[in-house]
Amino acid sequence: MEDRRPTVPPFDPNLRIPGPTSLPPAVREAGGRQMINHRGPEFAAMLARIEGGLRPFFGTDGDIVVLTAAGTGGLEAAIVNVLSPGDRVLAVTIGAFGDRFARIAETYGAETTRLEVEWGEAARPAALRAALAAAPGDGYRAVLLTHNETSTGVMNPVEALADVVRSAAPDALLLVDGISGLGAVPFEQDAWGIDVLVSGSQKAWMAAPGMSFVSLSERAWAATETARMPRFYLDLAAHRTSQASGQTPWTPAVAVMFQLDAALGLMADEGRASIFARHAICAAGVRAGVTAVGLALLAEPEHASPTVTAARLPDGLDWKPFNADLLARGLVVAGGQGRLKGRILRIGHLGDVDPGRVLAAIAVLEAVAIRHGLDVRPGTGPAAAQRAMLEAEDVAARTPAA
Amino acid sequence: MEDRRPTVPPFDPNLRIPGPTSLPPAVREAGGRQMINHRGPEFAAMLARIEGGLRPFFGTDGDIVVLTAAGTGGLEAAIVNVLSPGDRVLAVTIGAFGDRFARIAETYGAETTRLEVEWGEAARPAALRAALAAAPGDGYRAVLLTHNETSTGVMNPVEALADVVRSAAPDALLLVDGISGLGAVPFEQDAWGIDVLVSGSQKAWMAAPGMSFVSLSERAWAATETARMPRFYLDLAAHRTSQASGQTPWTPAVAVMFQLDAALGLMADEGRASIFARHAICAAGVRAGVTAVGLALLAEPEHASPTVTAARLPDGLDWKPFNADLLARGLVVAGGQGRLKGRILRIGHLGDVDPGRVLAAIAVLEAVAIRHGLDVRPGTGPAAAQRAMLEAEDVAARTPAA
Repeated sequence: MEDRRPTVPPFDPNLRIPGPTSLPPAVREAGGRQMINHRGPEFAAMLARIEGGLRPFFGTDGDIVVLTAAGTGGLEAAIVNVLSPGDRVLAVTIGAFGDRFARIAETYGAETTRLEVEWGEAARPAALRAALAAAPGDGYRAVLLTHNETSTGVMNPVEALADVVRSAAPDALLLVDGISGLGAVPFEQDAWGIDVLVSGSQKAWMAAPGMSFVSLSERAWAATETARMPRFYLDLAAHRTSQASGQTPWTPAVAVMFQLDAALGLMADEGRASIFARHAICAAGVRAGVTAVGLALLAEPEHASPTVTAARLPDGLDWKPFNADLLARGLVVAGGQGRLKGRILRIGHLGDVDPGRVLAAIAVLEAVAIRHGLDVRPGTGPAAAQRAMLEAEDVAARTPAA
Repeated sequence: MEDRRPTVPPFDPNLRIPGPTSLPPAVREAGGRQMINHRGPEFAAMLARIEGGLRPFFGTDGDIVVLTAAGTGGLEAAIVNVLSPGDRVLAVTIGAFGDRFARIAETYGAETTRLEVEWGEAARPAALRAALAAAPGDGYRAVLLTHNETSTGVMNPVEALADVVRSAAPDALLLVDGISGLGAVPFEQDAWGIDVLVSGSQKAWMAAPGMSFVSLSERAWAATETARMPRFYLDLAAHRTSQASGQTPWTPAVAVMFQLDAALGLMADEGRASIFARHAICAAGVRAGVTAVGLALLAEPEHASPTVTAARLPDGLDWKPFNADLLARGLVVAGGQGRLKGRILRIGHLGDVDPGRVLAAIAVLEAVAIRHGLDVRPGTGPAAAQRAMLEAEDVAARTPAA
C-alpha cells in the first residue's frame, strides 16, 4: 500500500555527495558573470589570485598549475609529466580512486605494482616500508598515494607515509591524489616532501567541477624534462610557462575560475584554522549521527575522513528505494562505488558544509531508516550528532591553530 | 601630450574575440545555478538534452561525446582514440590551429606529413588530391582538417575537401577540427563522411569554455578498438559507455553544462536557418566595416570565415597602444597568433552576436583608427557595415532554409 504520509523536503536540496559540493551564494553569483578575454589583464590578475589562494592549503611555495579538467585529468597530468614508459611505480591503493590512479600509470606503460589495503582501512607506514624494501631491480621511480579516499571515507596518514618514502626510497617521486581532502585539513606539501600534488575545484574549494590543480616540487619539474610519456593537453610545463605571463596555454574554464576566485576569497576570510575546525566538527557530527541511526561506519575510526563518511547499509536494506526516500526528503547522498555498490552510502561533508546541514541530513537519514523498519527512537540521530559536534568544538578549541 | 578627449565605453564591454563569446542573459543565469548530483536523474536528462541539441548542428545521428576539456583536449581526444603510434597522417594546415592539430598527432607518435597553405588562404581540393596521391607507402591512415581556422579567419570548404578524401583515400579517417565554426554554419558530418568532428563550448554555442564535443562515425568507433595511442582521461569509448546511462566517467563541468543547456535551448528556439543567416549578416557587416576603415582583410574573400575576421594592421601602426585605445572604448578584440603576432587584429562574430554590436565594434575601430592618424571620414565604417548587413539580409532571404 502506498505510503500517504507527507514528507517535507527543503526547496534547496541538501547536497551531501562528496563533490560537487553545494556553492555558497557568492560563488553562485560569480558563476553568473559575463565572459572576459582570457588573454587580458583582468584574467591574469584572477589567475594569480587563484594560485595565491590555493598555495597556503597546498603548503607549497612552488608553482601550482591550473588545468581545465576533472580531477582524473589532474591525476593523469601528475603521471604523464614526470614518468616514462617502463618506469617502476608502486601504487598504494586503499579504494576505487587509488585503483584509478594505478590504472592511469598502467595505461601509459608504467610497470605498476600495487600495495592494496582492505577497503575501509588506511595504508600502514610499516606495510609501505616493507613494500619499498621488496622493490624489484633498482627500486621504484615513483610512489602513488591517495590522501583522502572518497570511495571509502578514509584519510591516509600522508605525513607518516611520506616520511617512509623519503627515508626508504629517497629517489622515488611521491605523487599524491589530494583531490577530496585538500583545503579541508592541514597539508604541507613542501615540508612533507610531496613531489606532485593534485586537487579539484568541486571539492573543499566550493566551486563547480571542471578544474584541477597540480603542484610540483622542484625535482618533479626537473623530471618533466626527461619524462617520455606523451602529453599535450595536460602538458604541465606548457601551463607553467603560460601562467608566468598570466595565461593558460588553452582556453580555460573561465566561469569555474570566477567561482573559484570567489570561493578562495571566502576561504581566506574564514581562515585556515576555522575551515579545518569546521570540517572536523561536521565530520564528527555525521559519524555520530550515522552510527546512532544504526549504520556501521566503513572507515576504521582513527583514519575516518574529515570530508566524507561511508556507512554500511544494514542487511536486507535495498539501496534504490532507500535512496529514493532520502531524495524525496531532499537529501542527496552518494552510493557505493566498485565492489561497494549497493552496500554502502556516502555522505559528503566538505566545502560548503555547516552543523545545520549536518543535522538536517542526519534527521532525514533517521526518518527514512525508521520508515524502512530500522529500530531507532526518533531524535536519537540528531541528538548524537549535536553532542558530537559540541564535543568537537571543545576539541578544536584545545587544538593549536594550523 | 596626453589626449584629454573623453571616450565613452559601454558598461558591458563588447567582447569580440573569437571565443569565449559573450553569454546571453539566460546563459548567465544558468551559470549561477546551484550544483546537482552528477550521478542523478536531473543530470542524465540534461546530458541527453545537450547531446540532442548539438546533433542537428553536427549533422549526425551518431553519439556525440561531451568532454570536460578545452577544444585542444577535444582535438587530442580525436587523435589518440582512433590512431596508433607510427600511423601515417596528412595534416592539412592553414594556420595556427591546423599546426596545433598536427603537433598533437606528432606528440603521440604519428608519422605526420603537412600540407601547408599560405595563411589567409583555404586548402584547395586539387592540392589535397595531389598530396593524397603522393602518399608514402600504403597511404595515409588519417587526414586532419580544420573547418574554420581561427588564427586567420578562413573557413575551409570542408564538403569539397571531404569529397576528395572519400574518393582519393577512401580508407583514410577524416578528422575535422570544427571548434570555431560548428553551430554557426550548415554542417553535415554524416552526409559529408567526416569520421571525427570536434567542437568547443565557448564558440558558437554561447557557453563558457571548459567543454568540448567529439562525434565519431561508426568506422571511427570501430577504430577506437584497435587504436594504440594511450588515453585515459580522454578515452571516448569510456565516455560513450557512461553517456548511455546518463553519466560521464569523470566528474563533468556541471556549471558549463547548465549554460550549454540554456544556450542550446536558445538556439533551438531561434532555429538553424536564422542562426546561420545571423552569422552571415554579421560577418558581412564586419568585413565591410573593417575594409571601409582602411584595414585589409587577411582571408581571401571566397573563404572568409562567417565567425571570425582577421585584418592586417596598417604599416607603422603599433598594436599595443592601438589595442589599448580599443579597450578604453570597450571593444575587446584579439591580436594575431604565431607568425601574425602584432600584425593583425581578429574580430569574433560568433555565438552571441547581432548587428548592433557589429556596428558598435566598427564604430570604435573607426574612432581609434582616426585618433591614430588613419585617413577615414567619420561614419564611413558604420555606414559600410550597415549597407553590407542589409544586403546580406537580402541574400539570406533568397537562400533556401538549411
